[in-house]
Amino acid sequence: MIETDAVVIGAGPVGLFQVFQLGLLGMRAELIDVLPEAGGQCVALYPDKPIYDVPGIPACTGRELAHLLLTQAAPFLPRDAHGHSAQLHLGHQVAQLARDATGRYSLTTDQGRRFSARAVFVAAGAGAFVPRSVNLPGLAGCVNVHHHLPDAGQPAPWAGAHVVVCGGGDEALSTVVALSADTPDRRPAHITLQHRRDVFQAEPELDAAVRLLIRDGAVSLQTGLPEALDAEGTRATALRLLGGDGQAISLSLDHLLIRQGLSPRLGPLTDWGLTLERKQVSVSPATFESNLPGVYAVGDINTYPGKKRLLLCGFHEATLAAHAASAALHPEAPQHLLYTTTSPLLKQRLGRA
Amino acid sequence: MIETDAVVIGAGPVGLFQVFQLGLLGMRAELIDVLPEAGGQCVALYPDKPIYDVPGIPACTGRELAHLLLTQAAPFLPRDAHGHSAQLHLGHQVAQLARDATGRYSLTTDQGRRFSARAVFVAAGAGAFVPRSVNLPGLAGCVNVHHHLPDAGQPAPWAGAHVVVCGGGDEALSTVVALSADTPDRRPAHITLQHRRDVFQAEPELDAAVRLLIRDGAVSLQTGLPEALDAEGTRATALRLLGGDGQAISLSLDHLLIRQGLSPRLGPLTDWGLTLERKQVSVSPATFESNLPGVYAVGDINTYPGKKRLLLCGFHEATLAAHAASAALHPEAPQHLLYTTTSPLLKQRLGRA
Repeated sequence: MIETDAVVIGAGPVGLFQVFQLGLLGMRAELIDVLPEAGGQCVALYPDKPIYDVPGIPACTGRELAHLLLTQAAPFLPRDAHGHSAQLHLGHQVAQLARDATGRYSLTTDQGRRFSARAVFVAAGAGAFVPRSVNLPGLAGCVNVHHHLPDAGQPAPWAGAHVVVCGGGDEALSTVVALSADTPDRRPAHITLQHRRDVFQAEPELDAAVRLLIRDGAVSLQTGLPEALDAEGTRATALRLLGGDGQAISLSLDHLLIRQGLSPRLGPLTDWGLTLERKQVSVSPATFESNLPGVYAVGDINTYPGKKRLLLCGFHEATLAAHAASAALHPEAPQHLLYTTTSPLLKQRLGRA
Repeated sequence: MIETDAVVIGAGPVGLFQVFQLGLLGMRAELIDVLPEAGGQCVALYPDKPIYDVPGIPACTGRELAHLLLTQAAPFLPRDAHGHSAQLHLGHQVAQLARDATGRYSLTTDQGRRFSARAVFVAAGAGAFVPRSVNLPGLAGCVNVHHHLPDAGQPAPWAGAHVVVCGGGDEALSTVVALSADTPDRRPAHITLQHRRDVFQAEPELDAAVRLLIRDGAVSLQTGLPEALDAEGTRATALRLLGGDGQAISLSLDHLLIRQGLSPRLGPLTDWGLTLERKQVSVSPATFESNLPGVYAVGDINTYPGKKRLLLCGFHEATLAAHAASAALHPEAPQHLLYTTTSPLLKQRLGRA
């Protein structure tokens, strides 16, 4: 159990700035995200695309913005000699949130990590980014159906076998290119790219590379709509497809690798008792507190009159939420607003004294 | 009369970002400020001091932030070959604001420049920065009492005469240094620095330079509290002072130059019918509209529940105000939120197509 002042759910731009603002106010935060790196949508969806409307930053990419916000929050997410921050919990999705008798919140992630916090900040954007799957009965129970590539250095389950890669976008095509270029001990014996039609939605270079692999016979292309999955016990054996001409196709396989990109899901947070309005958490525009006392929602996940889903609005919301939480936790303390330009205390907290 | 979509009062950080957000929404803005350059407090009060809490900018000075925001707003403040923007009106204070029968607002500056706009954005910060004066009866009516240095190339009214410089801070001391080093045709015959006591509040280098001028007799120092001004007609002739020992002093002069820094004054905007609360304009947190329809207040000048006087909050307020004004002016148009990362229309407006 990690005891802390605050837990921030979501390490996107707004979650990172939430940690910064809490840090300025002297509150320690633990930051949790389901993705393997910080930056949220900025890194997962548009790392190389330009953003022009962050105040004072005439142009930056999603990845550059995430880097800047991580740098800014760094005094409050200290790293060890290996660059690891004990307060940054990546690859974790918060599964449970419950309030105890003392008013503290207990949080448990899907990996079983537990936290106890006085305030919770939901900065979950459009939800947790989880892999977009194929909706077929029995698929979830099969041990040879995958949505992720193995980490570097880990064995490839499909080495020497027939892998069917589902998808027609950048992720599926780059997976096909990577698998066909893998080392002999990791490479599949055969790769089939399975997509609903013979047209891809991918970068032109990637499209051309995959077309070349198909032409040379290194990769097979199988079009059609997935209709069912054949399985023996917990192993999928074939994907049944409906072809363009109405023909039934059975595509036998050793492994099925679904690479259809990420899709945001609200997921467990719909069960926490938060008042939702069209899948957004309703908040007060003065404090960004939800209906649960001490639980704040900031950024794209919240709604209030006038709400615009813009980064710069999320930064404002995180700031006011941090001040509201600080005031609620220290009702006796005077609430003078300090400025980083002039306050020795803030400079000391920032390590700029 | 300049006809425009919007007038923004105040060219500080929030006013500059207001112009940017209006531009993204296709609204043309005229930007007015009493100071001789854009940037507001950032440039006038802390040009070289660090700011650490602008989201995504781990550290910058006031002047750097102003430069970044000017760069960002540049597509919507086009400049001619001489670097002059016809939409940027510096050295003007808005004196009058009135609504006509058609619902448009007429604005007139203290220099007589007139505007007609469909929406007005008050981004006036702590008010208009005007020179801090000395409170003495008759002072305002004297033609030989000054608060500004002449522009470069303009004649110096005190050339060859006795000038008394009032003040004990950076501005007064740098004025004394500048006057004593001026060209012979512009230099005063004698300079007296007048301050309430023999201690200055200035940068050490400046303090040392002035001490040297006083030691060498190039500048006289006269301490004491100003109590009255003697005048003949519209010309001040002597400053009457109360010395530290209770002694009455008469300091004769040809010109009086008051250099006590800038002080923000709400000034004329208190007469426009805006609902004020402790010298702040009350606004709705959904639209940042004031009680006057079509008049919005953003940044440090406004107040609403939860208000914090922070730059990043002003940026959010300017954004929501721009959207609210756009929606009010085009009630028939759909209000889809466009993103600079993906919208061809916004990229075209930004000149990034």
